[in-house]
Amino acid sequence: MTAALNLGPTDYSLLTDLYQLTMTACYTGEGIEQQPASFELFTRRLPPDFGYLIAAGLAQAVDYLRQWRFGDEQITALQATGIFAQAPDRFWTLLAGGRFTGDVWAVPEGTPVFAHEPMLRVEAPLWQAQLAETYLLNVLNYQTLIATRAARLRDVAGPTAILLEFGTRRAFSPQGALWAARAALAGGLDATSNVLAALRLGQKPAGTMAHALVMVIATLQDSEDEAFTAFSRYFPDSPLLIDTYDTLAATQRLAQQMERGERSLTGVRLDSGDLVELSQQVRSRLPGVKIFASGDLDEWEIARLQAADACLDGYGLGTRLVSGRPVNGVYKLVEIAGQPTMKQSSHKETYPGRKQVWRQAAGDRLALADEAPLPNATPLLVLVMRGGELCRPLDDLTTIRQRATAAVAGLPARTRCLTEPEPLSAEISPALRQLRAELSGDRIPA
Amino acid sequence: MTAALNLGPTDYSLLTDLYQLTMTACYTGEGIEQQPASFELFTRRLPPDFGYLIAAGLAQAVDYLRQWRFGDEQITALQATGIFAQAPDRFWTLLAGGRFTGDVWAVPEGTPVFAHEPMLRVEAPLWQAQLAETYLLNVLNYQTLIATRAARLRDVAGPTAILLEFGTRRAFSPQGALWAARAALAGGLDATSNVLAALRLGQKPAGTMAHALVMVIATLQDSEDEAFTAFSRYFPDSPLLIDTYDTLAATQRLAQQMERGERSLTGVRLDSGDLVELSQQVRSRLPGVKIFASGDLDEWEIARLQAADACLDGYGLGTRLVSGRPVNGVYKLVEIAGQPTMKQSSHKETYPGRKQVWRQAAGDRLALADEAPLPNATPLLVLVMRGGELCRPLDDLTTIRQRATAAVAGLPARTRCLTEPEPLSAEISPALRQLRAELSGDRIPA
Repeated sequence: MTAALNLGPTDYSLLTDLYQLTMTACYTGEGIEQQPASFELFTRRLPPDFGYLIAAGLAQAVDYLRQWRFGDEQITALQATGIFAQAPDRFWTLLAGGRFTGDVWAVPEGTPVFAHEPMLRVEAPLWQAQLAETYLLNVLNYQTLIATRAARLRDVAGPTAILLEFGTRRAFSPQGALWAARAALAGGLDATSNVLAALRLGQKPAGTMAHALVMVIATLQDSEDEAFTAFSRYFPDSPLLIDTYDTLAATQRLAQQMERGERSLTGVRLDSGDLVELSQQVRSRLPGVKIFASGDLDEWEIARLQAADACLDGYGLGTRLVSGRPVNGVYKLVEIAGQPTMKQSSHKETYPGRKQVWRQAAGDRLALADEAPLPNATPLLVLVMRGGELCRPLDDLTTIRQRATAAVAGLPARTRCLTEPEPLSAEISPALRQLRAELSGDRIPA
Repeated sequence: MTAALNLGPTDYSLLTDLYQLTMTACYTGEGIEQQPASFELFTRRLPPDFGYLIAAGLAQAVDYLRQWRFGDEQITALQATGIFAQAPDRFWTLLAGGRFTGDVWAVPEGTPVFAHEPMLRVEAPLWQAQLAETYLLNVLNYQTLIATRAARLRDVAGPTAILLEFGTRRAFSPQGALWAARAALAGGLDATSNVLAALRLGQKPAGTMAHALVMVIATLQDSEDEAFTAFSRYFPDSPLLIDTYDTLAATQRLAQQMERGERSLTGVRLDSGDLVELSQQVRSRLPGVKIFASGDLDEWEIARLQAADACLDGYGLGTRLVSGRPVNGVYKLVEIAGQPTMKQSSHKETYPGRKQVWRQAAGDRLALADEAPLPNATPLLVLVMRGGELCRPLDDLTTIRQRATAAVAGLPARTRCLTEPEPLSAEISPALRQLRAELSGDRIPA
C-alpha cells in the first residue's frame, strides 16, 4: 500500500488539502456552496534573482479541471476517516454528482508575467473553485518555475546553443521529472533525456553515454577506445563521454584516429574538470566536433563559461534546473456573490475584484475585468474554459516556446539580466486603486 | 496528449534517461549485457548545512524494480524514434522478455547515513542494473531529502510539537507532493494535509481552515465570527484561522465568547504577522487552546521562534519543507564481472568494490562487502531483494519514523545542530583503502 504512490485522473479529486473538503462541507451546510466565486492565481513577488516569470502548466490545469470526479471509492474513503461525521448529507450528494462547471481565464503558456498579475482566474460555484486551489497551485507553480529557468537559460546561452534537459535523477519525484521536461521544452530547451516525457510530448529524446559504459568496457577489455568504438557502432551520431579517465589523453587519441580515418565523431561530452581549459583544448584538437558540457550547470555558470571563452556548443541541464526555490504563487478569493473581496492580513495585501492585465508598449496595466479595453493594448487573460468545457485549443509546445523566446527578447535588458534584475511592475488602474482603498478602509467585520 | 503527464507502473520502463537504453543496446550488441554488475547509490557529500541524511524511498524503489516491464506499446514507441535503427535485434528480444532478476541490498528507511556510505546496492545483470539508475536515483534522492528535513524539524521542535505537512501546493508536481508527504511522515512529522497521500498511506489527513472561508462568510454575512461559528458547527475539533482581518481583535472576541460559554475552541492558527508577539497574546487570552503557526516555516525559523519564547504547540510546514536544494545522490558502477571499478574523473573519486557499512559506538566503518564482520557492529546494508523478489518485509511508516527519531537522538549534538553541523565520516577499512590505492595507480587504459 505505501508503495503505490503513482497517479492517474481517478486520483485527481482527492489530490487536495483536507481543508478544501472540510470548507466545502461547511459551505454546503450553510447553503452557500453554489454562490458564484472568483479566485485568481498570482505571485505577490518574484523569486529572488528573477526579473520575470514565464507562465506554464495550463494544459495540466485544464486536464485536472475537466477530469476530477468523486466516485464511490473516493467517497467511501472520505467517510471512513470519521472527519466528516457532522457534515451535512448534502455534502456527499454534492461530491457524488459534482464536476467542474465553471469558467477559466488564463494567460497563454509562454507569456511573461510579473508580480500581482493573475496567471489564472477561476469563476465557478464556490465549492468547485475552492476545491481546485491545491492542484492548480501545484501545477502552475512548478511548471512556471521550470519554464522561467529554461527561458533564462536560452536567453543566456543564445539561440544556437543546444540545451538538453537531463534532470530526471534529481527531480522531485518521477512525475516531477515529466513535468519539468515539459516546462523546460516550453520555456526554451531543445530536448529532454527523459524517454517517457519525450514520447508523451511527441518529441525525440536526447542523450549521450554514461561513465558506466566506459568503465565496463574499459575494465573488461582494458581499453577506453574500445568503449568508444563499441558505442559508436550502434549510435554513430551520439556524442562520446571523454572524461572517465584522462580527458586530454582521450581527446588526443580520438584526434589521431580521426586523422587516420579510423573514426568519425560528431560530438563529445565533458562532465568534470575545468570546462574552460578542457573545452578549448578539445576544440583545438577536434575542430568540427560539437562539445557538450554537463555537471551542475545553470544560467550563471553558462554565463561564466561564455565570458571565459569556453568552446561549448551544448549544455546538459539537470540538478540546478529542476530543483531549488519555488515560485510562490497563491490563489485568492477576489469576488463572492458579486462582491469584491480582499484579505487584510499583515504584509499579505492583494488587489480585490476580478482583474485583467493589459499589455502595451509602455508597460502593463492591472485593471478591473469590467473596465473598458485599453487602446493599443492586449489583454493577457483569455477565456479557455466555459461552463467546464474547453473553449479554446491548447497551444502546442512549439507555439509556447516561440512565444516565450520572442517575448523574453522584447524585455528590457535590466529585466533579463541574471544579477539583480528589475522586474517590470504593472501600473494599477484608477478604478482598481479606488476599490482597494475602499476595501482597505472597510470596518473589520466582527 | 501533452496534458497526460500522469504515471502508473506501465510507465516505469520508459521512465529513464535515453542513454540507459542506448547503453543497453550497446551492451547487447557486444554480448556483455548479462555480465554480473554491482552499482552503489550514495552521496559524495551532504547538502550544505546537513549533518546527516535519513535514508528514505526504498519502498518505491522496490515497487519499481518489481514492476518495470517493456510491453509491445513501449517497444513500438522506442522503435518509432529511429534512434535504435542500428541496435542489434537481440536488444528488442531482451527488452520484451526482461524483468529485474537481481539482488538488492539497502539501508533500512529511517537510518542516518553519511557521505560515501551506500544507501543501496544493486547486483544484477549489467543491463538491468544500468536501466534502473535514473528511477532509483530519483526516488531515493527526493525522499531522503524530505525525510532528513522532517527529522531535523522534529529534532528542533521537540517530541510533543504537532508537525503537519502542508506542502502540496508548492511541491514539484502532484506526485512530488505525495512522495513528500510519505517521506515527511517517515522522517518525523505527525500528519499531512494531502488527502490522497494520507489515505494511500493509511493515515488520517489533517488541516485547519483557509482565509477564503473566513472571507466568504464575512463578506456574505458581514461577520468574521459567523465564519468561525459555521465552521465549528461541522468540524468542532478543527482549529480556527484567526488572522484574516485583525488577529488580536478576533482573539479577544473568541475569549469573550468562551467565557460566556457560547463557544468551545480547541485550537487556532496564525499565518501572518509577528508570530512571537501574537502567539504570546493569544496564549494569555486563550489559555488551553492549541496555537498553530504556518507561513514559510522551517527548522531555523522554529528554532528562532522557540528561542524568542513564542507560545506555539504546532507548526504547518510547506514550501520550505518540500522544495529547495536536492540531495545529490549518485549511482556508480563498483564491480563488473567480479572486477572492482572506480571512476577517476577529477574531483569525483569514489570507493571501488562492493561495500558494507558497519555501525558501531565508535563510529562507522566503510569496508569491502566480503570482509569479516566487525565485532560489536551492525551492518547497515541488508538484503531486501533476492533474484528479483522481495525477501524481507518492507517497514511500515511507524517503524521507519521511530527508527529515525531514535537514531537522530543518538547522534552527537555537533552533528544535529542547524548551523555548520559536523557530519560524521566513516573510517575506511585497510582493505578498501588498499584496493582504492591499487586502482588509483592503475595505468589508464587507452
